[in-house]
Parts: sequence; structure tokens; C-alpha cells
Amino acid sequence: MTPAPFETTRSGQDIGEREPLRYAARELSPSGSVIDLAGISIGGGELVVMAGPCAVESEQQLSAVARAVKASGARVLRGGAFKPRSSPYSFQGLKEEGLRLLAQISRETGLPVVTEALDTRYLDLVCRHVDMLQVGSRSMQNFPLLEAAGKCGKPVLLKRGMSATIEELLLAAEYVMKGGNRSVVLCERGIRTFETATRNTMDINAIPVLKRATHLPVIVDPSHGTGHWWMVPALSRAAVAAGADGLLVEVHPDPEAALSDGEQSLKPGDFDLMMRELRSVAHAVGKRLPEPEASQA
Amino acid sequence: MTPAPFETTRSGQDIGEREPLRYAARELSPSGSVIDLAGISIGGGELVVMAGPCAVESEQQLSAVARAVKASGARVLRGGAFKPRSSPYSFQGLKEEGLRLLAQISRETGLPVVTEALDTRYLDLVCRHVDMLQVGSRSMQNFPLLEAAGKCGKPVLLKRGMSATIEELLLAAEYVMKGGNRSVVLCERGIRTFETATRNTMDINAIPVLKRATHLPVIVDPSHGTGHWWMVPALSRAAVAAGADGLLVEVHPDPEAALSDGEQSLKPGDFDLMMRELRSVAHAVGKRLPEPEASQA
Amino acid sequence: MTPAPFETTRSGQDIGEREPLRYAARELSPSGSVIDLAGISIGGGELVVMAGPCAVESEQQLSAVARAVKASGARVLRGGAFKPRSSPYSFQGLKEEGLRLLAQISRETGLPVVTEALDTRYLDLVCRHVDMLQVGSRSMQNFPLLEAAGKCGKPVLLKRGMSATIEELLLAAEYVMKGGNRSVVLCERGIRTFETATRNTMDINAIPVLKRATHLPVIVDPSHGTGHWWMVPALSRAAVAAGADGLLVEVHPDPEAALSDGEQSLKPGDFDLMMRELRSVAHAVGKRLPEPEASQA
Amino acid sequence: MTPAPFETTRSGQDIGEREPLRYAARELSPSGSVIDLAGISIGGGELVVMAGPCAVESEQQLSAVARAVKASGARVLRGGAFKPRSSPYSFQGLKEEGLRLLAQISRETGLPVVTEALDTRYLDLVCRHVDMLQVGSRSMQNFPLLEAAGKCGKPVLLKRGMSATIEELLLAAEYVMKGGNRSVVLCERGIRTFETATRNTMDINAIPVLKRATHLPVIVDPSHGTGHWWMVPALSRAAVAAGADGLLVEVHPDPEAALSDGEQSLKPGDFDLMMRELRSVAHAVGKRLPEPEASQA
Repeated sequence: MTPAPFETTRSGQDIGEREPLRYAARELSPSGSVIDLAGISIGGGELVVMAGPCAVESEQQLSAVARAVKASGARVLRGGAFKPRSSPYSFQGLKEEGLRLLAQISRETGLPVVTEALDTRYLDLVCRHVDMLQVGSRSMQNFPLLEAAGKCGKPVLLKRGMSATIEELLLAAEYVMKGGNRSVVLCERGIRTFETATRNTMDINAIPVLKRATHLPVIVDPSHGTGHWWMVPALSRAAVAAGADGLLVEVHPDPEAALSDGEQSLKPGDFDLMMRELRSVAHAVGKRLPEPEASQA
Repeated sequence: MTPAPFETTRSGQDIGEREPLRYAARELSPSGSVIDLAGISIGGGELVVMAGPCAVESEQQLSAVARAVKASGARVLRGGAFKPRSSPYSFQGLKEEGLRLLAQISRETGLPVVTEALDTRYLDLVCRHVDMLQVGSRSMQNFPLLEAAGKCGKPVLLKRGMSATIEELLLAAEYVMKGGNRSVVLCERGIRTFETATRNTMDINAIPVLKRATHLPVIVDPSHGTGHWWMVPALSRAAVAAGADGLLVEVHPDPEAALSDGEQSLKPGDFDLMMRELRSVAHAVGKRLPEPEASQA
Repeated sequence: MTPAPFETTRSGQDIGEREPLRYAARELSPSGSVIDLAGISIGGGELVVMAGPCAVESEQQLSAVARAVKASGARVLRGGAFKPRSSPYSFQGLKEEGLRLLAQISRETGLPVVTEALDTRYLDLVCRHVDMLQVGSRSMQNFPLLEAAGKCGKPVLLKRGMSATIEELLLAAEYVMKGGNRSVVLCERGIRTFETATRNTMDINAIPVLKRATHLPVIVDPSHGTGHWWMVPALSRAAVAAGADGLLVEVHPDPEAALSDGEQSLKPGDFDLMMRELRSVAHAVGKRLPEPEASQA
Repeated sequence: MTPAPFETTRSGQDIGEREPLRYAARELSPSGSVIDLAGISIGGGELVVMAGPCAVESEQQLSAVARAVKASGARVLRGGAFKPRSSPYSFQGLKEEGLRLLAQISRETGLPVVTEALDTRYLDLVCRHVDMLQVGSRSMQNFPLLEAAGKCGKPVLLKRGMSATIEELLLAAEYVMKGGNRSVVLCERGIRTFETATRNTMDINAIPVLKRATHLPVIVDPSHGTGHWWMVPALSRAAVAAGADGLLVEVHPDPEAALSDGEQSLKPGDFDLMMRELRSVAHAVGKRLPEPEASQA
């Protein structure tokens, strides 16, 4: 009868009505964008797996992981040089030395490299050493960093914030694209919920929502999305089956000794097994995953 | 420019537009309803404090708590006879024996009693023994129970579900009121969020929102809303300052030995101290809290 | 240096340590339980799809949906006779007439039927008409109902509450199993989060966590888990890839005219298409999905 | 019997055990820190109200608001010069011109000024113009910014992230303090939850938790914490009653025409009324709120 004088704040309107997507909207490229990363196509028919350690710890560690993940079919090397850590007393990354190691191992293995920059001051430095710039979850609404990423000349991997709505992720991509950089790959990496059995709740729903709203490629990070290495294969399969264009996976030769996030890192052997299982799921949804190198089989 | 083909589900419309409030809407009683509970007015100028143990454990326990909280100014005795417990291996309450004890101690102290019914089959039994029927958080959308509560002839204390929106709480009240029972008191008791430092997040925002949307009285349960006895006084003061009409507080003579929820139960002495502090806050916002009995002072 | 005097409430201990799982723990049946539903095995190598309308609306509607979903490979018919609705002014289901129709169409099609009971008083009635009892999300912690389900003699489909932790879901299953009923199937159906682009956030993480913690079969409800029919195929594929034993899917011949949840219901043709795509994903993870009937192809 | 092989990730240990608080822990200053802001003491017995527009829009707007809030008893002027906005197409603030206006109005009114810096590159510029540096919610885990704030020589107002745990807020403060800056004021400003009736859920629980864990002063922002101007007075009273040391409130002379966040801004007259009501609540909990200037009464 009589309505309550009561309005909700987060509106139910169409996203585009409230906050226009001038560059990222699906309609602008209905068949989807394909981003070129040093010769590798993200968003095409190939499932692109980016793998490596949470943090670069040493030449030996990075080299071992890079060779192992390449042999299993990964196409891109990930590794943190500047690490955002909740506590100032935790390991903060090797910083410039880490960048140098990433560049070196990239040359040796032929794998392009993605790593995170935490601050505009280091963005040029990072971009000189690596092939793809990561904007991390905690930086998804660091607008000056997004604007700088829009002019950095390298493809950008933009991770969803821990409590960012899908709309906010798309608007963050608009900041980058407005600056002139159209090579943006979106990454779902788990959101914060009440559930404590997992570190985050991987929002697989986000994949079809993003695929409908934007032409940008979408990958997922099941390592952060779950927080447990033993869940990574199941969630990787789920993401691929739901339409993801790629994965970002943490691999460490000795997770118990890792300087960060060991609990969520796969060992190389488990990663290899996962990749073999993924191949058939990728095939089932019409995607290709490169065969592992012969030497590994 | 071009909008994303993207709609959100939980709409931003006015609550009353989507789901009419035919009985609970504020406009139907702009000055607010006053509910009569065995001669006590809830929703008038007096701050009504309901206190007692989480669960009725014994005559001695209940009697001691009842006398103590009465002496400190509580007007209603709370206590669970049928306890909803996550695990089937936890103490489930004294059941009928608990109801009998509640009725006995009510007669001895003159305090009216509120307790929970978990199921329609026991609703008549519960209502025969007590003065106010509690519909607990886990039952907020037990629609058969709400409908039965609408015909039970006793005032109903309706607790918000752990993840119920404010709109859903109001619609649950409509179920009761539609059945003919207009004596409904709403209770905010904390919601589930990502925060783990507290058992729940007490949603103080809900108080002004409810006050604007409905004429029904609103009380809060800071014991469940926080999960820690040492937080109860601060949140009780906050709730009163924000406009709550009353409180529901757990008090136990020996919290460490409590059969349920000891961590969030105040000792009688701490409850008494809290009531003294509350009096000035209540006064500051134009509400009265009865003076404690002389014997206690 | 000095730690803060600060404890979190929801503990990080092993679930089994805090709240024992005496019947549901994985160790008790390491290879996993297989539940028999009128001759259909849930939890074995076959992916069991349960499909049908949100609510039974008429004989014609139910019959049309049942025949269509059967032809596409569904093995179980779902349909609500007693509908839990947030507002008392929404359609509440056909109730007994709905049960009668479910039983009739079940006989005609040979599909076993699952439907929800909202209250202990109607549990016997429901169980006389159908093959499997659903305990809905809003009832996951209706402990009297769980206890009655433990003695009802029919397999139980137990849906996770909207803000229930995985641990609480397992403990709810313990209530049923403690009563003597070991035929429990768990169902993830989306949880409440801050995200508003979808009705709920389907927690795919829950699948591997449940598979590790319990021997009970796990299915998912992508209709409620997303709230949008166009997301159901992607999330169904994801769930199967992550290890789900089955699906619960809403199908309606005319979703725009549905009396409830039309936005999340697939049309029969879209359901058929989804089932064809699912077959290859199921195969990729070592599961079988029955071929559709020849007449449909 | 047998426990589930199931561990939760976010641990239940004492915060200080996992992540030491070397500077912020309560034990280090059991009676609480008092921060000096241009002669005003935050964390002492006075309730410090910081008020002003969301964004600096013009000299006229800022001047009018500053004089009005000062007359009502505010002690600090707030106003955004660099605005973090979800969309790149929204008003981003007057930037340097905004800083210049803040400094000018500060000189004219004698009110110290707090404003936000979004990036390390602008931190020196911001600190030259204002008395207190705000690190906003989206920057709470911008660790380079926190480290720079640790060396900026001005008091820091550190706002809790939208989904930051209380522990993470304390660790963010550690980043600042580790750099040598001990003048940190914490600010609760609402967290993200499933509730859509309010923009955020103001976490009043955080006040007693923080007061127990740290010696740093705690203020709250009820404007962002609710998203509705008509809720601000109730939540301000609640925060003060729960023990907050101050408030951060948005005031605008013409909220409907505001370039950002108009819905949550109070008009000067409503702010004045709120301050009068707050005075008695502050008094009830043993705090002082300065009398308004005579001219305003």
C-alpha cells in the first residue's frame, strides 16, 4: 500500500547508464579484443597460462620455476619484485634486483614477464625491465597509477580489488584506456566474503558478466582466489570452463620455504599435472592450450 | 558512450515500490508504535532493557541472573529454552523444563519473559509459558513460523537474519502483521561480513534506516552483534545514541562455565556498571532508563 | 614487539577439531558416498542434472518442462510446491495441489521428483508425494526440520544458507545424518556478498573444499547462484569442471510470465543447448552425462 | 569423531602474535596517545569534529562552509583537492588550485586543514599546503604512500579500506609509524557488506576493538559510512557514545548541486543542529565538544 521512504544507494540501473564505458564496452568490439604480449595473443583461441613464484627470491629459484612452467606449457613468467605486504615487517621483495632477475630469466627462457608496480615513481623502471605491467588488487583504484599505466607503452594486467564491484573494475580499465593504452587484460582474483575456509572467494560469476560487458580479455588468479594450493587445479578448470582466456598461477619449487604465499603455491610437478588436465577442459570449450615440451613428458 | 549490456539484480528502487509494506510502513503511524508487553511499553520514551542468560541452565542460574538484572534496571527477562546450535553435538537447551523455569522465575520476580520458538509445533507451548515470542535470526525467513506468530496472541520479537537485508526484515514483519498480530518489535543483532575480529558486525546503520521506514520499535542485541562481552557496553551506548528503543543483553553469573555463548555474556556486576553509564546516554537523547532498585545501589 | 590484546572470534582451527563431523567426514568414506535416488546414483561417475520450474504453476507448465528437460538429459524433476518468498504478497506456491501435480508428472515421465518442505508439519505430506526432500537455503539452520528430515526416509537435498559457512553446512548435514538418514546431497547455491551485478556469488571454491571435507555428493544451483539465465551455462560448466556431482537448474517454458524467478530460468531450448555443451566438459573431467533422447535430437 | 581435513586461512590467533604491532600496540601507551594538530589535541578529552565539503569546488563554496562549520563548533576543515573517483569521467577535484584555496581559507578562518594525497609524487605539495595528510580508503594499502607519509612531517589521518580488516588497518598504521611519524589518527568510514540500503555499513564495532588494540586516536566518517545525509546525526551520536575521539563530516551549502557525494552531505543548518545534539552525548560519555561561537547561536 504505502511505500517506505527508503532508497537504496547502489543503484540497479544498467552500468553503462550510470558510468559510461567509452573504451571497454563490449559493443565497441563485439567479437572481443586480442591483446598482443610480446608475440603471444591473449583473448584469442589460446588459453594463456602465466606462472611463476609469488615473489622473486633468487636467480636459482626464478630460473628453476621458469624452466619448469615453460616445460609444462606456460607462456608467460610471473614473479613479484615489489611485493605489497600487509605488514611492514614481512619480506617486501628484491625490488630492482628482482626486476633485473626477471629480465635475465626472460632472455634465457624466451618467456615474456609480467610484474607489479606499486607506485608511479617506479613505473618507468618496471616497464623497462618487463613485458607486461601488473596493477595489483590493492592498486585497482590507485587512479594516478592507472593513469600512468595508460601511457606506459606496455600491456597492462589489471587485477580486481578485493571488494571492488565488477563495475568498478571496468571503470578502472577505463582510466588506463583513456590514457591511450588499449592493451588491458582483466584479472579476477577472489573477493572478500564472510567465508573463512578459503582466503578469498573466487568470483567465477565475474567471468560471464565481464565477457558480456566488455571486449577485454579476462584471466583469473586461482592462487589468490582460493589461498590453498590444493584448490588451484579445480578452480583453474572451473575458470576455463566458464570462459576465461588465461590463468595466473603461483608455482614455487619449495612452497614450505617460500618467503610469501607458500600455502597457495603449487610445486612444479603438481603444476604440470594440472596443465595436463586443463588441456582437455580447454578443448571441451573450444580453446587451445599449447602442448608441453617433449623434454618434460 | 555506449553502455554495457549489464543490469544489476538487487534494484535501487524505493523499497516500498518493489515490495509494499502494508502494515509496517512508517506513514501508517508517523509518530511510531508503542508495543505493550505485560504492562511495559516498548517504543515509548523508556529504554527497555531485556537481559538474562543465553540459555536457561538451572533454576539457580536463572533466578540469580533475573534478580541481578532486575536490580540493575532491566525490565524483561530473556533466556533460551530451545537453543539453535550450529552443531547437533552442542547443548540444545532445557526445552520444556526451561520454559517451566522461565515461567516460575517470571512469577517470582515480576519480570515478563521473552524466549525463542524454533518450530511451529512448539509455538503454542512456548506462548503458554512466556510473555513475548522471539523469532530468532536463523528463523527470520521461516515463513510458516512467521505466519503462526501472526496468530499467537503474544508480542513478537523478530531478530534480523545474519545476512538479511533491512528490506527483508521488514517483509518478515509483514508476514507476522498480515496474520493479525501488530505487536512486533524488530531486533538488529549483527550481520555477517568479512571482518573476523568480531563475531558479527553490529549494523548500527540499521537503526535510523528502520526508524525512517517503519513505525515498529527497534531494539538491538549487542551480545550477538559483537560476540565479546567487553564490547557490549560500548555498542549498547552506541545503539541508544542512534535511537534504539531497547536492548537485548546476555548476562551470566559465571560466563566461563556457560553452556553457550559465554564469551559474549556480561557478569552481573559489569551489567550493572553498563546500566549506570547508559542512563546518561539515554538521557542525552531524550529517553528514560528506570533507576536501579535501591537494594542494588 | 608487544602484541595487541586482540583475539578473533571465528577461529582458524581445523573444523573437525572444533565441531566434530561424526557422520559426514571424508575419512569415514574416503572414496565418496553414492546416494540412491529412485534408482539414480548421485555421487558416482554420472553427472546428475535436476531441472524444472522454480514453482509448479499448472499441470500444463510442469508437464511441458518435465518432458523437455528429460529429453535433454535431465534425470530428476525439480519444482516448488511450497515457495519461500521474501514478501507475503508474492505467489506462495500451489502447495498440496503442487505436490499432487509433481507426483502425477513424475509417474507420467518416470522422472523422480525433488521439492522443498518449509515446515515440520508438512514434511510427511511432502515425503509421501516426492522422491527427495529439499531443505532450502532459508531452512539450512532450521534444526527441527533437519532433525525431522533425519527420520523422513527419503534422500535429502540440503542447500547452503545464503551466509552459511561451509562448516555450518556440514554441521547441518550432521543434524540430518545423526537422525539416521545417511542419504544427504549438499548443494551450493550462491552466497551473499557486496557484489550487485549478480543476485548471489556462486561459491565455486566450496566444491573442492567440500570434496576434501566430506564424502557426501555435492551439486550446485547455478540459477540461484547467479540470478541471470544467461549466466547459467557458464557456471554449470564451471561447477562440473570443479568436480560437482550434479546440477539443479531452473527451466521455464515462458520465463517472462513465470510467477517467480523468471529472470534466472532457462528456456527449454537454451537448456538443451547447455546440456550438449556440458557433455564435453563432463567427459573432460571423467564424468558421464546421459545422452539426450533421440526424439529431441 | 574424525575431524575433517580442513583448515581455515584467516587465523584465530591473537593479532599481535601473527603480525606484531611494534608502534601502535596499546600496551606501549596504555592511557592512549594524544596527537597535536596545529595546536588542537586529538585523542584527549575533547571531541574533535572535522567538517567541510567532499570536494573543494570554489573559493566561495569553501569559505562559506568553513565559516559555518567553525561557527557550529568544528575545529578542523576538511575538503578534497585531489578526488579519487571510480569513473575517469567524474569530477576529479581542483587539484593544486584546491590546495591553494584550502590554505587560504585556513589562514582566514584559523581552522587547520586536512586533505588527501593520492600519490607519492604529490605528497610534498599537499603537505606544504595543509596541516594534516589524509590517506584515503582506496590508499590504505598503498604501501609506498604510507612509507612516504611516515616521513612527511605532518599528522596523518589514515582511513580504513572498504574491505580492510581491523588488523590490516593497524598494520597500515605501522607502515607510517615505522617511518618515524607517530602522529597517526585512525578513521573508520564504513565497510562493504551485502546490505544495499546504505552505501556502506559503518562498523561501530571497530571503535572498541581499536581502542583495545591500539593507543592511537580513532575518529569516524559517518558521511561515507552511511551514504545518506539524514543518517549522519544518528551515526555521529553512536560513534561518540562508543568512544570515538572525533568525527569527519561532509557539509555542503547546496548538496543537490555538489560535484561529488551530495547525497551524503549535510547542509550547514543541519550540521549545526547535529552539533548541538552531539554536545549532550559527548558530555554523557565524559568528552567535551566546544561550544559554538556566539554569533551562530
